Amino acid sequence: MTAGSLVVVGSVAFDTVEASGQKRDMLLGGSGSFFATAASYFAPTKLVAVVGEDFPQAHLDFFGSRGIDTSGIERRAGKTFHWSGRYSSDLTSRTTLDTQLNVFADFKPVLPEAWRGAELLFLGNIHPTLQLDVLEQVKKPLLVAMDTMNFWISGELAALKRVLERIDLLIINDEEARQLSGAHNLPQAARAIRAMGPKTIIVKRGDAGALLFHEGGVFAAPAYPLEAVIDPTGAGDSFAGGFIGYLAKARDFSPFSIRRGMYYGSVMASFCVEDFSLDRMRALTEAQIEDRYRAFRDLTHFEEIRIA
Amino acid sequence: MTAGSLVVVGSVAFDTVEASGQKRDMLLGGSGSFFATAASYFAPTKLVAVVGEDFPQAHLDFFGSRGIDTSGIERRAGKTFHWSGRYSSDLTSRTTLDTQLNVFADFKPVLPEAWRGAELLFLGNIHPTLQLDVLEQVKKPLLVAMDTMNFWISGELAALKRVLERIDLLIINDEEARQLSGAHNLPQAARAIRAMGPKTIIVKRGDAGALLFHEGGVFAAPAYPLEAVIDPTGAGDSFAGGFIGYLAKARDFSPFSIRRGMYYGSVMASFCVEDFSLDRMRALTEAQIEDRYRAFRDLTHFEEIRIA
Repeated sequence: MTAGSLVVVGSVAFDTVEASGQKRDMLLGGSGSFFATAASYFAPTKLVAVVGEDFPQAHLDFFGSRGIDTSGIERRAGKTFHWSGRYSSDLTSRTTLDTQLNVFADFKPVLPEAWRGAELLFLGNIHPTLQLDVLEQVKKPLLVAMDTMNFWISGELAALKRVLERIDLLIINDEEARQLSGAHNLPQAARAIRAMGPKTIIVKRGDAGALLFHEGGVFAAPAYPLEAVIDPTGAGDSFAGGFIGYLAKARDFSPFSIRRGMYYGSVMASFCVEDFSLDRMRALTEAQIEDRYRAFRDLTHFEEIRIA
Repeated sequence: MTAGSLVVVGSVAFDTVEASGQKRDMLLGGSGSFFATAASYFAPTKLVAVVGEDFPQAHLDFFGSRGIDTSGIERRAGKTFHWSGRYSSDLTSRTTLDTQLNVFADFKPVLPEAWRGAELLFLGNIHPTLQLDVLEQVKKPLLVAMDTMNFWISGELAALKRVLERIDLLIINDEEARQLSGAHNLPQAARAIRAMGPKTIIVKRGDAGALLFHEGGVFAAPAYPLEAVIDPTGAGDSFAGGFIGYLAKARDFSPFSIRRGMYYGSVMASFCVEDFSLDRMRALTEAQIEDRYRAFRDLTHFEEIRIA
C-alpha cells in the first residue's frame, strides 16, 4: 500500500507559552508544525508555510528528520509569526497575550508544481480566501479537509462559506460549530453545517473527546483522561494531523476508516499535551503509538470478546 | 439467574419545571422516583421515601405497575417535597427557583424488616447522616453505591467521609468530584476519592458522558448526542438507576459488567431527557432499551468485526 500524498498549508510560528507553572519562550509552534509532525508518523507530509529570516535551520532539519518535505516553506525577509499566551492553572482556558503576525501577514501560499497532484489536502486555520487559493492550486484531490476559527466565522463568513462548499471534511470545535450554525445542539449544528458543503464534520470537544457526524451516522471518540497535561497548545492540530495522516496512510475514507483515524488523532493529541511545543512528538516509536491506540480502544471497550 | 434484591433510598417529590419553552407544574419527580423507575426495567426495586398527604395514589399505582415495591414509602401529615427550577434556553444550566422540603425535612428512613437482607443498596442524595442510618439497617449488602451533592460536600464533609469509608461505589458529577478531592484533574480527583473508601468512582459529565475509575483502570462511556432534549431533570438519577439496576440483574460486579452497566445507565438517562418528568420511562419495551443500547455501542464501535 502506498500512502496517499498529503499536503498541508498552515502556520509555522514561535510560541511563548505560560502553563503548568513554567514560562517557555520561542518554542516551535504553529498549526502547520503540529499537524505535519503528527501526520508524519503515518504518511509523508508536505508543508506549505512561511517563516522569517530568524527561523532556525535546526527546526527545518527537525521537520526533515520526520520525513516532512519543507520545500514549500518560503523564507521571507522579516520575522516569523510569534504567538504568546497564558493558560489558566487548570489548563481549561487560555489568554492570548500577544500576536505578531510578521511575515505571516502577507502569506500567499504557493504550492510547488510537483505538489499539485496531491491526493489529500489539509487547509489549516488561515484566511478563507487563502484556503480557496490553495484549493484551486490542487488538481484533483481525493479528500480536502479544513480547520477554521471563530475569527473567520465572525469576520469572513461569506469567504468561509465559499470554501465550505468545496471541501469534504471540516474539523471544528464545539463553540465554533455553534457559532457557524447558530444551533446550540451539536447534532443540529452538524446537520446545518453539512448542508453548507462538507459531508463529514468532526466536532472537537477538548477533554470530552470528539464527535463525528457523517453518512455513517454519529460516532464518539473519547479523550484519554490524562493525569499529566503540561501544555495544551497544538492539541487540535495534532489531532487533525494524526487523523488525516492515518487516512493518507490507509487511502480509505470509509466510515470505519474515519473512525479509526479519529482514534489515531486522539492518540497524537494526547502525546502533544504531555510536553511543551511538539517536544513529546519529536521521536515517538511505532510501538508507543500502537500502545496508546490500544489504551484508547480499551477505554471504550466493554465486551468480553476481544477483537484484534 | 435471579436478580439481586435492590433497595434505594431517595426523594419522591413534586417538580415544577420550566424548560424548552414550557412550564410544567406538579410533575412526579425526586431522585428516588427517577432511580427506581429506571432500575425497574432491570430488577425488582424497593423504594424507601416519604410523601405527604397530597401525594396522589395514581403515582404510587404507577410505581406498582413498574414492579416497584412501595411499602417503604411512608406517608406523613403535611405536604410532599416540592422543587421548582428553570433551565437556560440551551438546557446546559438551571436555576432553582424554590425548594419546599415539607415532609422531607424530617425524613427518617426506616427499612421494612424484610428489606434488611438487601443485596444491593443505593443511597440517593440525602443527608450523609441519614445515608449512614440506612446503611446500618442493611445486614450484609453485596454492593453499596451512593450519590451526593455540593451542598453536603461543603456543609457536612465529616459525616460524608464516614459514609464514604463504608461504600463500594460513588456516583458523582465532575464538579462535585473536584470539590470533594480538591483536584481539578479528574484522574487525580478520582484517585483521591478512592483513597477515602469507595473502590469504584463514576464521574458523570453531562453531555460529555461518564468516566469510570476502578481496579480495571479507566473507562469512558459517551453520552448519546440527542437532538431532542426536552427536560434534563432526573438524568443523573436515571443513569444511576439503569446502572445499578443492571448490576442487580446481572449479580456480577466485574469490570466488564460495570462497564456494560454504565451503558445501560446512559441509555436510561437518554430516555429520561426526552420528555418532562419520568414520562418517557413510563412504558418502555425491552426492544426499545436494547435498540438504544446497540445505538450506544455503535457510537463507539470502530472495528469491522461485529461482536454480538
